[in-house]
Amino acid sequence: MQAYAENCPLCADSGGEVVWQDSLCRVVRADTTDYPGFCRVIWGAHVREMTDLSSADRRHLMTLVFALEVALRQLYRPLKINLASLGNQVPHVHWHAIPRYADDRHFPEPIWGVAQREPIAQRPIVATRALRHALVAALAEEHAG
Amino acid sequence: MQAYAENCPLCADSGGEVVWQDSLCRVVRADTTDYPGFCRVIWGAHVREMTDLSSADRRHLMTLVFALEVALRQLYRPLKINLASLGNQVPHVHWHAIPRYADDRHFPEPIWGVAQREPIAQRPIVATRALRHALVAALAEEHAG
Repeated sequence: MQAYAENCPLCADSGGEVVWQDSLCRVVRADTTDYPGFCRVIWGAHVREMTDLSSADRRHLMTLVFALEVALRQLYRPLKINLASLGNQVPHVHWHAIPRYADDRHFPEPIWGVAQREPIAQRPIVATRALRHALVAALAEEHAG
Repeated sequence: MQAYAENCPLCADSGGEVVWQDSLCRVVRADTTDYPGFCRVIWGAHVREMTDLSSADRRHLMTLVFALEVALRQLYRPLKINLASLGNQVPHVHWHAIPRYADDRHFPEPIWGVAQREPIAQRPIVATRALRHALVAALAEEHAG
């Protein structure tokens, strides 16, 4: 499997401010005004599908995704977490983790659906350092549990 | 945690033709004309978020999701697999697993996005029995691997 692909934005660039990384994958902020707390978990190598990864690599990645979910729930107190691995436009394994609220722009639609309203509520502002700290703590819990 | 919720459609009903199930979760067909092969993996108990499940239960569920991905790739030969756990409308843990093609109704948008075209291509017709067989084989591989 090719580790790097020409013209892949996730091979060429981090894809956002890096919250945490190890030798295999990284967590980056994908926050927008509409979706504070939106993060992506990106596999380092250019791999198309989750099942192109070994079972051990998949476990490694999903442990990180779920630790991120724990951190986002603690810090953002969302109504719901949305998780998705799509990759239709960028077929390089990455997970979207999105805190959702009843009054956000698209709720209850997915964020890729039709906008439902102009969001007005203030959301938590969380520094990257605090997000990293919560993620590292959640990862430690995962590995202990 | 409450195992059953009033007014939850995934507590009240299977949510589609059952392809496979065990004591914890089930795979059901969610095929539409636009999205043949679309399946959902549904946790049995009424649990809101993935991180409300124990680590062992999460692993059990994700092993099934990825075995389903293997089976769908074998049988439908999609350009891409989309996986998502959203639950904004039905906050009972379930995963969407959707084979995607370059000429399907929404590609490269998520299936919840704006339609891009009227799909015309014929897709594989796969009997539930064949899907179950492929899923069981993929699960056996997962547990062996």
